Amino acid sequence: MNKPWFDKIRKIKPYVPGEQPNKSNVIKLNTNECPYPPSPMVKKALRDYDTDKLRLYPSFECNELKDILAETYNVCRNNIFLGNGSDEVIALCFQTFFNSDMPILIPDITYSFYDVWCDLYNIKYEQILLDDSFKIKKEDYLKKNGGVVIANPNAPVGKYMELCELEEIINYNKDSIVIIDEAYIDFGGKSAISLIDKYDNLVVVHTFSKSRALAGIRLGYAMCGEDLIGYLEAVKNSFNSYTVNSLTQAVAIACAKDREYFESCRQKIIKTRERVVYELSKMGFETIQSMSNFIFTTNPKIKASFIFDELKKQNIFVRYFNKPRINEYLRVTIGTDDEMDLFIEALKKIINYYF
Amino acid sequence: MNKPWFDKIRKIKPYVPGEQPNKSNVIKLNTNECPYPPSPMVKKALRDYDTDKLRLYPSFECNELKDILAETYNVCRNNIFLGNGSDEVIALCFQTFFNSDMPILIPDITYSFYDVWCDLYNIKYEQILLDDSFKIKKEDYLKKNGGVVIANPNAPVGKYMELCELEEIINYNKDSIVIIDEAYIDFGGKSAISLIDKYDNLVVVHTFSKSRALAGIRLGYAMCGEDLIGYLEAVKNSFNSYTVNSLTQAVAIACAKDREYFESCRQKIIKTRERVVYELSKMGFETIQSMSNFIFTTNPKIKASFIFDELKKQNIFVRYFNKPRINEYLRVTIGTDDEMDLFIEALKKIINYYF
Repeated sequence: MNKPWFDKIRKIKPYVPGEQPNKSNVIKLNTNECPYPPSPMVKKALRDYDTDKLRLYPSFECNELKDILAETYNVCRNNIFLGNGSDEVIALCFQTFFNSDMPILIPDITYSFYDVWCDLYNIKYEQILLDDSFKIKKEDYLKKNGGVVIANPNAPVGKYMELCELEEIINYNKDSIVIIDEAYIDFGGKSAISLIDKYDNLVVVHTFSKSRALAGIRLGYAMCGEDLIGYLEAVKNSFNSYTVNSLTQAVAIACAKDREYFESCRQKIIKTRERVVYELSKMGFETIQSMSNFIFTTNPKIKASFIFDELKKQNIFVRYFNKPRINEYLRVTIGTDDEMDLFIEALKKIINYYF
Repeated sequence: MNKPWFDKIRKIKPYVPGEQPNKSNVIKLNTNECPYPPSPMVKKALRDYDTDKLRLYPSFECNELKDILAETYNVCRNNIFLGNGSDEVIALCFQTFFNSDMPILIPDITYSFYDVWCDLYNIKYEQILLDDSFKIKKEDYLKKNGGVVIANPNAPVGKYMELCELEEIINYNKDSIVIIDEAYIDFGGKSAISLIDKYDNLVVVHTFSKSRALAGIRLGYAMCGEDLIGYLEAVKNSFNSYTVNSLTQAVAIACAKDREYFESCRQKIIKTRERVVYELSKMGFETIQSMSNFIFTTNPKIKASFIFDELKKQNIFVRYFNKPRINEYLRVTIGTDDEMDLFIEALKKIINYYF
């Protein structure tokens, strides 16, 4: 190996996303996508799109999209920051808002990208233990810090924190930025967006990848006070001026307008989730109470890694994290009722085989 | 102003992109977009796209798109890195490859995002003067450095550097990464891609925004040896796993397949450029020899800022940089023949009025 430039470049260990199997006939319950197609309005928007316009740069301000989101959440256009998926939005938030010598606080079990971003941007962080029931203890976040990040509901456990508890954390940390990652809030939780007028240190992040069934277009957004939007835009515009392309804007506008479809989708997923949790309990699984489009479940009698491998052999993909404290759990995305029936049937067979 | 979090966050001065006028009936010659629509295959690709698939994350590897580009440029799939516009690609290159204490070398007059990225990532840089004819002098780049970035043709002047001169720079700097930004190479220049097998320190960056008429989809790509691809992917995957969305992939595949349309577009633009340069010379303008889809032109008898303002009043947008050495020049994107005729007519009127 002769790489004379080796010392001048950056070597890093990246985040590893969930497996994307190439095979067809797979039941894909491993990356928390929506099992239902996006709103029919999306198809229409693409069909009607004037492709000649693609020769031009996208709208820089994205005002049409911002206005629809503003209306949806009862905020102002100037409270919205858009990005190429909520991963980009949160990464840019980390880069902008966490710039002190004090460590930011994140739960020890949470979205596994947070500590990767800390490493990327040289941000000190402290991982705060969830309690034994995988609950975030609010008291632990009432201390000096460089910032706070909480996923609510928390991934990959699915547990939801009540808004009044969250508000205590936000209120205590008025001298830090508190990011609430609400990727899964539409599956039963109450959003903290209502608090952004009250707290200028609060940033709430949402995504089109889960409840809006548009993981393929990559769109996420942050909502916060105008001051923070300004700093965030400045960093973003020092990185990449046009992060949300024209087709993404057109598709997202069509999707956001169709509130009825959105409602029916999320209600279906919640209903299926509750049924699956009940079915699993009958088979001896213990499932963390979920307010997400996934569940986190364990069977005290069978190794999670074994179930994971066996399901995979049957082309059913779920997510397994080989990490301390959670290596006896499986994270299972809620699919359609048919998919979940096949999942439960497969589990039954595995259990029968095991004993 | 009471912002208790103020000291903990990052304050930055962003890059300012070219103006995007909201009015219609505008002749937009200010952001180097292609005046022709994208390939008709793009329309077909969008019309045929199965929108139900948008519920899923995009392909992580983007192999179908990479394979078509690999075939186009006679490289391997593993020599290609894709990103959300060439701005993102170059930003990630800066973050990955420029990580030493030595300054990177960039021309003093060049794409104005380079020094913005240096500031964003705390990269030291030295701006090397172009000569009085706005030529990059290769000798100036044959010295110790933390990296080299050269736009070829260079923006906003449009001047092209011969490949043999460029190769001397690449060859001398085997212990640094040399980035050649070829956003405008398709308008008459010879690409350095042929050199990536020979030099493992070379990175060549292209975009779909100019010659491929797809600024709206945001797609750029870097081509380099597999070693560098690996380090670049690691940084990218620590930032955002899915930067190129599903629709962008589908549209870009359709576009890249249509080589005939691509050829005819760029030939038309080259032809119009040469005609416009000739017409301008008859009016007393002096134009830097351009191998781009824009020209950099000055009239010794009229202030550039005056012409800029007067054109704007007539809804003709060109680009003016109020910076030392270039504040008597206008950068004018090559539009359709009709657009350029209107531009020349407008200039004639301005000149007549001025004298």
